[in-house]
Amino acid sequence: MRARLELSTYLVADVTTITGAGFRRSVADVVSAAVAGGAGVVQIRGKELAANELLRIVEACAERIDGRAVLLVNDRVDVALAARAAGVPIDGVHVGQSDLPPHLVRALLGPEAIVGLSASRDDELAALRRLPEGTVDYLGVGAVRATPTKKDHPAPLAWDGFAAFAARTGDLPCVAIGGVGSGDAADAQRAGAAGLAVVRAVCSAPDPQAAAEALCAEWNAAQIIAQRTEALA
Amino acid sequence: MRARLELSTYLVADVTTITGAGFRRSVADVVSAAVAGGAGVVQIRGKELAANELLRIVEACAERIDGRAVLLVNDRVDVALAARAAGVPIDGVHVGQSDLPPHLVRALLGPEAIVGLSASRDDELAALRRLPEGTVDYLGVGAVRATPTKKDHPAPLAWDGFAAFAARTGDLPCVAIGGVGSGDAADAQRAGAAGLAVVRAVCSAPDPQAAAEALCAEWNAAQIIAQRTEALA
Repeated sequence: MRARLELSTYLVADVTTITGAGFRRSVADVVSAAVAGGAGVVQIRGKELAANELLRIVEACAERIDGRAVLLVNDRVDVALAARAAGVPIDGVHVGQSDLPPHLVRALLGPEAIVGLSASRDDELAALRRLPEGTVDYLGVGAVRATPTKKDHPAPLAWDGFAAFAARTGDLPCVAIGGVGSGDAADAQRAGAAGLAVVRAVCSAPDPQAAAEALCAEWNAAQIIAQRTEALA
Repeated sequence: MRARLELSTYLVADVTTITGAGFRRSVADVVSAAVAGGAGVVQIRGKELAANELLRIVEACAERIDGRAVLLVNDRVDVALAARAAGVPIDGVHVGQSDLPPHLVRALLGPEAIVGLSASRDDELAALRRLPEGTVDYLGVGAVRATPTKKDHPAPLAWDGFAAFAARTGDLPCVAIGGVGSGDAADAQRAGAAGLAVVRAVCSAPDPQAAAEALCAEWNAAQIIAQRTEALA
């Protein structure tokens, strides 16, 4: 069975952002703190790293998470498979449009894995619709705002653009990414987001656990307000 | 059964070197020409490429090679597996010391695959000896000379250093890499090399097929001379 996805606070643990944040803490330290603070999904992203170093980081994170959150690897399906082969539980992989195509990622990881895909354009959605249902579990949609942690994204969508895209993805949950964080929960929910995928909001925070806790609390509060507003209407 | 390794002329098809060589030709063009010229092994190296682009290049090369040479992918085990999943025959993967560890590469690719490893230090050889026999099929040993196509290698070994290392690898064939090419066959054979792994000598040559033919001819000529010299002694 695929792991249950609790996407509302989704941490992209970007290795370069964490090591460059000026705090003396490892990726596993940040990940562990974020999960203690309520992050439901952790994606380890280390585009600049050699595979062996990424594998070691992923293994250290898996040990610290210990099943309390869904653990994904960005891009490197082989690192996820190697961790599995070494007995380390990895839930899946998140790929972008220039990474391996999702149907091959699904073929390599098997039916139980979580496969996430970055998408923000209509042609990307059309390509996804040509794949068998269940190939991808969720979409990372952005960038909502311009962000320094990922330079290869197209022009920012803003919440309007996000909402327009998310309205067309059917049952597939959309996580908002790109410069999102504190203060965005209500806008994200109105735009149809299943959650916020944060990088700097947690990776660069002085206290990653408190940052994750605050994001979770904001998300839940925005949901309650939305529900009450709906009940009153 | 693992593919038979004919290592004497081993092409490292480095994508950046090929695209930067100033000729209007694709990686598959160069690979195809080199195989027509006699290269027995082709390794596709695209460290700077996104996985999907590397996959497309590997697929194009596989089609052009059509079984005439052993086809390996550098580093990205997932690209090799994805190609296989898409029905494209890939013989194996070559990894460096900072890539996935060879025992996990072997576990992911299975017993039939070719797994190559870059090694040049005694501790690397000692680590390899702790793995089950057959984990690795050959070693890429270098750099023999300093080379601009790979900047992360340690101080050049020169042929003396290569010979000292190759003498300790037992049955494991050693391919010489790093600034090697035309004129090196006799020295390489005296140093115990099973072949020359060339990058610029073919990728930057005006005529890659002629370059590969010349390397094969030099290798064979040096072997004949060595055998005759031995017979006379």
